[in-house]
Amino acid sequence: MLSLKKKGTRFERELIHKLWENGFAAVRSPTSGGSISYPMPDIIAGNGKKYIAIEVKMRKALPLYIEEQQIKDLAMFSNLFGAEAVIGLKLPHKDWRFFEIQQLKRTKKGYKIDRDVYYAGFDLYELLGKLKQMRFEDEIEP
Amino acid sequence: MLSLKKKGTRFERELIHKLWENGFAAVRSPTSGGSISYPMPDIIAGNGKKYIAIEVKMRKALPLYIEEQQIKDLAMFSNLFGAEAVIGLKLPHKDWRFFEIQQLKRTKKGYKIDRDVYYAGFDLYELLGKLKQMRFEDEIEP
Repeated sequence: MLSLKKKGTRFERELIHKLWENGFAAVRSPTSGGSISYPMPDIIAGNGKKYIAIEVKMRKALPLYIEEQQIKDLAMFSNLFGAEAVIGLKLPHKDWRFFEIQQLKRTKKGYKIDRDVYYAGFDLYELLGKLKQMRFEDEIEP
Repeated sequence: MLSLKKKGTRFERELIHKLWENGFAAVRSPTSGGSISYPMPDIIAGNGKKYIAIEVKMRKALPLYIEEQQIKDLAMFSNLFGAEAVIGLKLPHKDWRFFEIQQLKRTKKGYKIDRDVYYAGFDLYELLGKLKQMRFEDEIEP
């Protein structure tokens, strides 16, 4: 039986595969950053118009708790790089779901994704569709 | 004494550090892509306006030969992702120099960077400056 970590890697590869299938070039960041201490999301994807930075999470069940620093790092990287900051969550026997930072619930030590947040999230196609919508809104602004 | 490979990693880290210092969020791609066979450049950097995909090379001396497939992969990734495709070359006791694909000389099996190409390349600041210039040209085009 595969360990949770190995399964995580497999599901992450499948996610990257789906991004490519949907017209996004996607790369995984190195899991060990070596001695570089810059914040790096797990996946960066772009399609020439939109760029997405994804922090990947895999859990056996909800809620998912995320440390404040991790969200700060994701937001900092995404702002500088020029990418949408997204948390991707894989639950067993479920498709990936995606969440923007402002969708997360605050806790004392950071953030969480509970059932409410989970069902308010996006699937991959909604995420990419949502990005298309936002692109359109960008264009009509001065 | 450091091996060429370890030195390469150190210089690559320094390059990433310089990109961050100059307002670009930069990530290194994993050196071993695992079972994922998508083309991935060594470094991807973005500053919210411009995105750069860098294929990193380190040699003891010129000329540098590059296989055709590697340039095709870099071009394919960059086109899809939405990034400038750049080759970065580190020679001993020299700063990084950068080259666009169209600057490379054709060979039978691919491309090369000889002395002519080398001196026509950009240093890091020219590269970032050049990108700013290209952005301006983009804006005035229909």
